[in-house]
Amino acid sequence: MAFDRVYLDWNATAPLSGVAREAMLSALELPGNASSVHAEGRAARAAIDKARRQVAALVGADPQHVIFTSGATEAANWVLTPSFKMGRSPLTIGHLYVSAIEHPAIREGGRFVREQVSEIPVLATGLVDLDALKVLLDRHDSGAGLPMVAVMLVNNETGVIQPVAEAAKLVRAAGGLLVVDAVQAVGRIAVDITELDADFLILSSHKIGGPKGVGALVIRGEVMMPSVLVRGGGQEKGHRSGTENFPGIVGFGAAAEAVLRDLDLTRERLLQHRQRLEAGMRAVAPDVIIHGEGSERVCNTTFFTLPGLKSETGQIAFDLEGVALSAGSACSSGKVGQSQVLMAMGQDPAMGALRISLGATTDDIAIDRALTAFQRIAARRKMPERAA
Amino acid sequence: MAFDRVYLDWNATAPLSGVAREAMLSALELPGNASSVHAEGRAARAAIDKARRQVAALVGADPQHVIFTSGATEAANWVLTPSFKMGRSPLTIGHLYVSAIEHPAIREGGRFVREQVSEIPVLATGLVDLDALKVLLDRHDSGAGLPMVAVMLVNNETGVIQPVAEAAKLVRAAGGLLVVDAVQAVGRIAVDITELDADFLILSSHKIGGPKGVGALVIRGEVMMPSVLVRGGGQEKGHRSGTENFPGIVGFGAAAEAVLRDLDLTRERLLQHRQRLEAGMRAVAPDVIIHGEGSERVCNTTFFTLPGLKSETGQIAFDLEGVALSAGSACSSGKVGQSQVLMAMGQDPAMGALRISLGATTDDIAIDRALTAFQRIAARRKMPERAA
Repeated sequence: MAFDRVYLDWNATAPLSGVAREAMLSALELPGNASSVHAEGRAARAAIDKARRQVAALVGADPQHVIFTSGATEAANWVLTPSFKMGRSPLTIGHLYVSAIEHPAIREGGRFVREQVSEIPVLATGLVDLDALKVLLDRHDSGAGLPMVAVMLVNNETGVIQPVAEAAKLVRAAGGLLVVDAVQAVGRIAVDITELDADFLILSSHKIGGPKGVGALVIRGEVMMPSVLVRGGGQEKGHRSGTENFPGIVGFGAAAEAVLRDLDLTRERLLQHRQRLEAGMRAVAPDVIIHGEGSERVCNTTFFTLPGLKSETGQIAFDLEGVALSAGSACSSGKVGQSQVLMAMGQDPAMGALRISLGATTDDIAIDRALTAFQRIAARRKMPERAA
Repeated sequence: MAFDRVYLDWNATAPLSGVAREAMLSALELPGNASSVHAEGRAARAAIDKARRQVAALVGADPQHVIFTSGATEAANWVLTPSFKMGRSPLTIGHLYVSAIEHPAIREGGRFVREQVSEIPVLATGLVDLDALKVLLDRHDSGAGLPMVAVMLVNNETGVIQPVAEAAKLVRAAGGLLVVDAVQAVGRIAVDITELDADFLILSSHKIGGPKGVGALVIRGEVMMPSVLVRGGGQEKGHRSGTENFPGIVGFGAAAEAVLRDLDLTRERLLQHRQRLEAGMRAVAPDVIIHGEGSERVCNTTFFTLPGLKSETGQIAFDLEGVALSAGSACSSGKVGQSQVLMAMGQDPAMGALRISLGATTDDIAIDRALTAFQRIAARRKMPERAA
């Protein structure tokens, strides 16, 4: 990678943070398998337990209630299942309600069949439509089992903060379970599983400066648990088998501790950067549309449409200018597809949009470079012919 | 870890190899998400593709047919399912036959229910009983679906090499699918998916000097595929979603290339070490039982019972002597349990056994230290009272 490139795609993945790298390097030197009882195994176990405490602290949870997975996608596939246990008794979830702007890992519905999954509409503001959720839950057929609701805390494309605590009240009233994808929230806003009143939180390491290949399902209690997705050697108290990704988990823990400690500073700095970015974009192109602008957003995300610039063209143009950004989520941005989020917000998805997402090491120079690129690209765009 | 400890538990996990560490360190510096289309994303993608070629070469497969997972356990849970697809049509697997000495990740049966799983007995030699497999397959009720057979290539506890190619003939005759856990085989014997005539191979990175948290399912073709276990963003051609564990995959690839290149040398060196180890043990304690000794074993494993020494006691005693070894597989060795492998071989599991497993950096000093520890521990053992 040329040294002068500017990376503004932190919502796709954050570069590994210094503390995570350092923690991983030490962990890479430890030879043990955390399931082994010899000294090497016990050292690995102790390091994993430390990471569990660090990740728990990030979301106000009990360390015993952090279960490591290979990432948020696996955690989603695990928890989104009709087949639960309450203690040792089977418990059936009859239907899954997912917001229309969930990440594909959630929207696919995990182990539910398609007929068991309904979408909760989203308003033009980018906020989940709570009235619609209430109607869906009122109509829920409890004979088939409990309702499960999945609402993300922060949307990955717009950065809009969702009304999760309010959704939780509706879910409680309906006697259901609430799953919250907090992947894009941690490190950007304060997250507390109890305040959100969520039953399950989904976390990802690589979005907060930890390594890829690690995530967690954080559970409110161990009373109601999803049936096991990955069976075998009985690791993670039998909830998730497979030799623990020990350096990955250690890096995740270190990253979690760092983003929690730096939360206020990061937020303030990124907000300033983003204000300057958006003001600069608007000065160059007053017709730029910033999606979700009227709603409360996290500090680092700008999802915008520049009329006359297709998102595919725009993404390549920025890339050639040395600026890495994306057209929607990384998972789908590699494909020829339209933003499900824009569509859910009632926008014409054909116009497309681009996402700039900042992170811990984003500096003034990066914002300058992004604005210069924006200016050059905006000057070249093909304005649509105006109707007379 | 004190510098003078001796690590002889490579079947539980191998220390990270130098080449894997180096590859990972470079990968950790790359910021991109391999699904992103910008230069950073493309660099990550290219590195993953290289790893795919390296892992494919290790087992004689087409790189297109290597699908990365979070480890062997996930790969097993994915492939062991009644629900397959032949192209786009559903295909049902009616019953799973697993050898009685499979790793717990296989023996648990993945997504099959308990009634759909039968065990293939094992002989006292430590070899899967092919006659019994034939009887099972002859009795298979093909009305319920195809048979699936899982036989590991090398047993993790005894190191005994299983007659997989012979099992494959029986599976072919029955029109079934063959899943081969090759986790403990690669890097110790030559492995070729075509020669084995396996439909699926399961691999793990951390057993060959790669990092933990990565593995692969290697497929013979893409005609018959297990239903997806982890759905979402569509990574790995839709077979396995979730942001790729990019540094992990790169480390896995580097380790695979290294063990393939060094196979002959490693095998010869470890065989010499093991011969000296076993001869030394026998000189001190002629009554030591080496399990699977009469069968062909891989070069690095000695699974032994020393009469009068319980495995739990022995494991701790070796640990205190500075030698890390294990009582059976790491997954179960942390628990109070008996070796399923010993039991399957018709041995009294109560006597327990200990496993010494060597690896690439095992040297003469390590063998000396292990023998010294063995001698001291053997001298202290409580011999059972002899009947008059």
